[in-house]
Amino acid sequence: MGMVGGSLDAFIGGVHRRAAIMDGEIELVCGVFSSDPFKSKETGRALYLPEDRLYNDFEEMILKEKQLPEGERMDFVAIVTPNHMHKAPTKLALENGFHVVCDKPITLNTEEAEEITALVEKTGLIFCLTHNYTGYPMVKEAKHMIASGAIGKIRKVIVEYPQGWLATLVEVTGNKQAAWRTDPKRSGAAGGLGDIGTHAENLAEYITGLKITQVCADLTIFVEGRLLDDDAHVLLRFNNGAKGILQNSQIANGEENDLNIRVYGETGGLQWKQLDPNTLIHKTNQGARIIRTGVGNLSKAAQVHTRIPAGHPEGYFEAFANLYRNFAIHLRAYWEGRNADPVYDFPSAQDGLRGMKFIDAVIASNASDTKWTNF
Amino acid sequence: MGMVGGSLDAFIGGVHRRAAIMDGEIELVCGVFSSDPFKSKETGRALYLPEDRLYNDFEEMILKEKQLPEGERMDFVAIVTPNHMHKAPTKLALENGFHVVCDKPITLNTEEAEEITALVEKTGLIFCLTHNYTGYPMVKEAKHMIASGAIGKIRKVIVEYPQGWLATLVEVTGNKQAAWRTDPKRSGAAGGLGDIGTHAENLAEYITGLKITQVCADLTIFVEGRLLDDDAHVLLRFNNGAKGILQNSQIANGEENDLNIRVYGETGGLQWKQLDPNTLIHKTNQGARIIRTGVGNLSKAAQVHTRIPAGHPEGYFEAFANLYRNFAIHLRAYWEGRNADPVYDFPSAQDGLRGMKFIDAVIASNASDTKWTNF
Amino acid sequence: MGMVGGSLDAFIGGVHRRAAIMDGEIELVCGVFSSDPFKSKETGRALYLPEDRLYNDFEEMILKEKQLPEGERMDFVAIVTPNHMHKAPTKLALENGFHVVCDKPITLNTEEAEEITALVEKTGLIFCLTHNYTGYPMVKEAKHMIASGAIGKIRKVIVEYPQGWLATLVEVTGNKQAAWRTDPKRSGAAGGLGDIGTHAENLAEYITGLKITQVCADLTIFVEGRLLDDDAHVLLRFNNGAKGILQNSQIANGEENDLNIRVYGETGGLQWKQLDPNTLIHKTNQGARIIRTGVGNLSKAAQVHTRIPAGHPEGYFEAFANLYRNFAIHLRAYWEGRNADPVYDFPSAQDGLRGMKFIDAVIASNASDTKWTNF
Amino acid sequence: MGMVGGSLDAFIGGVHRRAAIMDGEIELVCGVFSSDPFKSKETGRALYLPEDRLYNDFEEMILKEKQLPEGERMDFVAIVTPNHMHKAPTKLALENGFHVVCDKPITLNTEEAEEITALVEKTGLIFCLTHNYTGYPMVKEAKHMIASGAIGKIRKVIVEYPQGWLATLVEVTGNKQAAWRTDPKRSGAAGGLGDIGTHAENLAEYITGLKITQVCADLTIFVEGRLLDDDAHVLLRFNNGAKGILQNSQIANGEENDLNIRVYGETGGLQWKQLDPNTLIHKTNQGARIIRTGVGNLSKAAQVHTRIPAGHPEGYFEAFANLYRNFAIHLRAYWEGRNADPVYDFPSAQDGLRGMKFIDAVIASNASDTKWTNF
Repeated sequence: MGMVGGSLDAFIGGVHRRAAIMDGEIELVCGVFSSDPFKSKETGRALYLPEDRLYNDFEEMILKEKQLPEGERMDFVAIVTPNHMHKAPTKLALENGFHVVCDKPITLNTEEAEEITALVEKTGLIFCLTHNYTGYPMVKEAKHMIASGAIGKIRKVIVEYPQGWLATLVEVTGNKQAAWRTDPKRSGAAGGLGDIGTHAENLAEYITGLKITQVCADLTIFVEGRLLDDDAHVLLRFNNGAKGILQNSQIANGEENDLNIRVYGETGGLQWKQLDPNTLIHKTNQGARIIRTGVGNLSKAAQVHTRIPAGHPEGYFEAFANLYRNFAIHLRAYWEGRNADPVYDFPSAQDGLRGMKFIDAVIASNASDTKWTNF
Repeated sequence: MGMVGGSLDAFIGGVHRRAAIMDGEIELVCGVFSSDPFKSKETGRALYLPEDRLYNDFEEMILKEKQLPEGERMDFVAIVTPNHMHKAPTKLALENGFHVVCDKPITLNTEEAEEITALVEKTGLIFCLTHNYTGYPMVKEAKHMIASGAIGKIRKVIVEYPQGWLATLVEVTGNKQAAWRTDPKRSGAAGGLGDIGTHAENLAEYITGLKITQVCADLTIFVEGRLLDDDAHVLLRFNNGAKGILQNSQIANGEENDLNIRVYGETGGLQWKQLDPNTLIHKTNQGARIIRTGVGNLSKAAQVHTRIPAGHPEGYFEAFANLYRNFAIHLRAYWEGRNADPVYDFPSAQDGLRGMKFIDAVIASNASDTKWTNF
Repeated sequence: MGMVGGSLDAFIGGVHRRAAIMDGEIELVCGVFSSDPFKSKETGRALYLPEDRLYNDFEEMILKEKQLPEGERMDFVAIVTPNHMHKAPTKLALENGFHVVCDKPITLNTEEAEEITALVEKTGLIFCLTHNYTGYPMVKEAKHMIASGAIGKIRKVIVEYPQGWLATLVEVTGNKQAAWRTDPKRSGAAGGLGDIGTHAENLAEYITGLKITQVCADLTIFVEGRLLDDDAHVLLRFNNGAKGILQNSQIANGEENDLNIRVYGETGGLQWKQLDPNTLIHKTNQGARIIRTGVGNLSKAAQVHTRIPAGHPEGYFEAFANLYRNFAIHLRAYWEGRNADPVYDFPSAQDGLRGMKFIDAVIASNASDTKWTNF
Repeated sequence: MGMVGGSLDAFIGGVHRRAAIMDGEIELVCGVFSSDPFKSKETGRALYLPEDRLYNDFEEMILKEKQLPEGERMDFVAIVTPNHMHKAPTKLALENGFHVVCDKPITLNTEEAEEITALVEKTGLIFCLTHNYTGYPMVKEAKHMIASGAIGKIRKVIVEYPQGWLATLVEVTGNKQAAWRTDPKRSGAAGGLGDIGTHAENLAEYITGLKITQVCADLTIFVEGRLLDDDAHVLLRFNNGAKGILQNSQIANGEENDLNIRVYGETGGLQWKQLDPNTLIHKTNQGARIIRTGVGNLSKAAQVHTRIPAGHPEGYFEAFANLYRNFAIHLRAYWEGRNADPVYDFPSAQDGLRGMKFIDAVIASNASDTKWTNF
């Protein structure tokens, strides 16, 4: 694995690195960790990389690695830059035969996303978008249960992603994470909607197997001086007639990172909260069951995404690592010319494109006086 | 207290009776408990009422009780009939000088509600609408904290009231509670929206002190054959610029009676759930506090609505009883020609009228292609 | 009902009164509410009792009420005085043909308890000891499940009753509740052990249907200057070979009134917490179920102790009232010369005697260097 | 790092490997993963180790690695074999200048533990015993708070470690994990007490900073045919006068791995549960605070053991990895001839010896009729 972005003071770079190496299948061999060459090298050295695999820019990395003999050169590129820097390295990597893991959102906008999606399809290379929250075993179990009819035809979906860390204008206080996320040039047309709302959209569609078809949105910038939405309230309609609500916020004071979903079908309901990720509640009018990672007869999907016996909490890194592990399984299948078992799934470029279009639809809806906007 | 409605097989009548007598201030002295004279008498006897105070209809009760000497006759009427039977006895009671406690919603529709509201104002009599969920001590504490600025200017309100008991067409299976609630003639133009959605609306406005000014609604009848909404998704806007979401459902399989609210202000957030009513969570980005009934320095509002020391759960009946107790305090003040301490509050006819108008606005919004409908 | 003790500033008197009247079956008709005649009358008037039924002492009350015609005189006496004042009024009431409801512990010591127990047996009158925590529907359900074999033969019982309110020497600060509870003359040989430890003992034996046979105790007075135990750690052995732990405390800073129990059998476990009383968790190695008051197919025992549909929290008063309601059912059966349905149970004098002997055994164990003391 | 034990079908070996590599500081370079050479090589290959670093036994590994040039040879040995195989490789490693990470318990018995402890002291090498539960950030915070006086002088400690997986005789069904843990030859004189009870003892002493001085124990073998204790109830006394209870079980049906602790001091209490590891509750009689990993002003100790912002659950692997990361920090300090910052702590050989003596004391107490046994 070669990495683009993710210097020592970044957040998501370290997450990707820990996730990648967790299962002993992937090794970081080279990288360009910052546009600042000093910071990039400093990071590379801290990661014990050899000097000659620390590159000045992603172009150099991709082109030079390509020169290396197979088996020695990186197998894929992990892209962990801010949103506006996703497309270029992704494109160059794909064009040069490298598979790609890319942090979400896939690109800065839909146009770019379509370009990348087409390129992935054309090259046949493997592309993984790290909508990491779908990597939790209990999300897999929920998806499996719904697909198996455990709660009947779905009627109602409530998905939420509240955070509180942007309740004040921290982007002007030197908070690097806040700065790029609230900057239209680096983040795109959406603020919190793109940063976390698309996780919620992705989770809702992933778990239910449904597609959102219409949205009715009310976006807000609550913090004076901010340039992008920090709160989103969205009514949803799904392709099977189900109704839903998606709300995300970065001004929900006191909320940490509370992605959660409730799905109600004709015969039961499911509830999952990222803050208590090893628990899935299955509710019916006759009573509720607590489904726990590692306990009882779970689906294969839940089992293969679990590393240790019940009662040993697996968390964010482990869920993230499930994407990398599955990516590695697909890589191996690719090299061996066979299909990987679909239970080892991960979000695709198409999922990324769908996220970009969701952002477009919500922004259009927000600007519209008409209630429903098609998605 | 004389009661209209509330035969032995009803739900809310028994609640009112237990709530009324809990604090030893109110006694049931007469009633007409059913339009079926046999059932009415049977109920009255089971309640140990004397035969001569068991009436055939509310007209008889009100007129005959009026003839009784002061001190002996009932002091007020409690009306616990289905919605379409609220207005007539309320009106007659007020016209004959009796104070009224009325189950919510105040009437079948806004027109009736305006009539009653005007009559309350004209007569100067005391009218209590049993939006009982505002009777919980932690709801009082939340209202007090917000009014005191504990979370700053409010930005975001999420209020929910999911139930699951109408997930199938139980109204045709002999379920009396379901039958009248899903019958437009007895329930009005709204189903779940009127039954429980107005509780959510009332709670949100009560706790925040704000007024909803606009709604954007998506109502659904999920169960085939049902005549009224069993699910509501509503975007809200408030008079201070805050945004909100209200959702209620009676098809949320596995949910019992999960009224809950989250309010986020500029400096903190509050969360309360009716299923864990003695707990209020105060969140900030620096940490969260668990506020509990009876623990520490609570507001006078919380204290006077609590009966026992901390750790002895007070529940639904106690919250309901707080309305009756406060009503009794106001009665006494009325008789003594003074104002009651406003800490002993209860929902008014105006609150009831507001609920009816909320129903109107949501139904209009649901029928409209325009995003926002004024309220 | 006539009441002995329970002036306006007492805690448990008001609880008994609310519990007694909750279901409309019992009426307070007379009382002596304090040894201070002024306070007693003041309380009686606040409760709207007629002057001629406000007595100067319990002897007067019992003897004068006995003179009244049947149907007019009180049917039973409720005794809510401090522990040292339980025996005398109980004895006189029984000797004069009055049934008794008595707050726990039954008496000041075992000798008195044996006397009362013998008297109850001799008179055949009905005696209810208010170990109120067994009145919760989910305690009934747990007892029923265990008796039905839902968790197999019991192996392990953990019962706890931590409180924190006596973490400092509040008994010298004018706290009346603390003062008598920590005074050997009024409370007996045990402090917290008698006040709350016996509730834990009673709950454990009630739910499991087992008997404790041996104890190994470590009692402590943590607060300097206190005269009675404020913390108890007790190892238990049961008559079927099960092992257990009982711990209670009044110095567990920050705990409210957290009575809770976990029972593990050969095939499953049960967990109940008084602070979340409408929930019972049934655990097995294959997963856990959340059992809730009013939800699904519960035992008759749980059903008849529940007043409202699921999701309307029933709390401390309702559980307490279940004892009074059941007592009333037994009274009626007594009058009608038949046996009451055993599902309407309540703690007996024998349970009270057992509690006193438990205190004796724990105190003896605490004083002993030998590990096990028989009970 | 070279590893002894931990073939692919083992549990704890994979945990150690993931924990070791998580922070990019440690690399697995060689190993002997099983006494079965085929399984050992198979594991080594699956871990991408070179053939010439896959050894036949630990003696060969230690001696051959010692021959390799510094910088190339392993820096330390991780020992993850069953208990009876801890001492020999530890001893040989230390004698040959290798630092050691050893899974707990340190050895099969106290005699061996004393030998190892003396050897560690004599060699001055670094020894880490993986009492991993002390690696959680909220455990660090709790320890820091108590040391800072946040809850005053400690009075009462309740520590529990219930599991349910051995509720039946699974050791005869081919369950390898169960088989060695219940075999006195491989596990030692204690069953669950040694396997998990010592974690509880270690956690209690670590968090409180106190030492247990006396125990009174009731050990049980509940499952017929089992050879070692599967349940332990222990009363504790601490060196400052505090009292406590320790209970662990492997027959607590339905419990996963529920290590938890409550500590009560003169002015407050703390509660932590391993199943919700990122939450610490700080209780006082004035209210409770929810302390969360990454939220607000935490101690340096909590901060340096946290990898990601609040709301991204860190779990078992991360806590385990904190021990390895700290061990690596100490290694570096060792090489550089300086002391490591004590905030980067980990359990020592002395802690391991203390655990062995705790087992001895509990077993002696269990066999004794005298209440207290000194520890």
